[in-house]
Amino acid sequence: MIGKLNHVAIAVPDLAAATALYRDTLGAKVSAPVAQPAHGVTVVFVELPNTKVELLHPMGEKSPIAGFLEKNPSGGIHHICYEVEDILAARDKLKATGARVLGDGEPKIGAHDKPVLFLHPKDFNGTLVELEQA
Amino acid sequence: MIGKLNHVAIAVPDLAAATALYRDTLGAKVSAPVAQPAHGVTVVFVELPNTKVELLHPMGEKSPIAGFLEKNPSGGIHHICYEVEDILAARDKLKATGARVLGDGEPKIGAHDKPVLFLHPKDFNGTLVELEQA
Repeated sequence: MIGKLNHVAIAVPDLAAATALYRDTLGAKVSAPVAQPAHGVTVVFVELPNTKVELLHPMGEKSPIAGFLEKNPSGGIHHICYEVEDILAARDKLKATGARVLGDGEPKIGAHDKPVLFLHPKDFNGTLVELEQA
Repeated sequence: MIGKLNHVAIAVPDLAAATALYRDTLGAKVSAPVAQPAHGVTVVFVELPNTKVELLHPMGEKSPIAGFLEKNPSGGIHHICYEVEDILAARDKLKATGARVLGDGEPKIGAHDKPVLFLHPKDFNGTLVELEQA
């Protein structure tokens, strides 16, 4: 069912410093910051040859990563995203096994303008998993 | 400097259950468990089309992930591994910027029989980073 690892998302307390770290110290190709107010984050994309790392910084009052950064002031890996071909089929299969889909269970349009769902970390080895329809 | 994302390592409290989750629920291709006594872990490799997820379970008294699982009983993402072409050049460049290399700073032979180093999470947005010479 799952295909490629689409990205690893890292919440960072200082987006400029994290961008410089990946660009200058680690020598990776990084994007300009992309504001995503609908998702409550500003994102810098780190382009690796086979996948992406996304550096996430809170944007606005209701950012979904503000609480994470309060608990993890240095930052940390926030979630991983796997691609699926058919997100509704994936959701139904997962729900049939008892896995919990976050929110109302309906796919939302994610940061890449594709349908996404998030799965409960407790059902996936303490790991917040995003599924994105590729 | 960094190349491909070689793997994402997830520490899991129950290796059989985590393997079944990735194989049966998420529909991924998984390996048999591989004992790595020198690294204090048993590993199941989840083969994705573009990279790997490694499910790590403690092996032996001095496992480097036992403490992590004590703090995170459900499991969690333990580290991410980036490939580099020349690990000594990478290390020297990183040290020159003030980034801390764990241990004595000399590359060790890692789980894939290639030289690896680990970088201090506090210097990398709360993320334990492994570098592997590809």
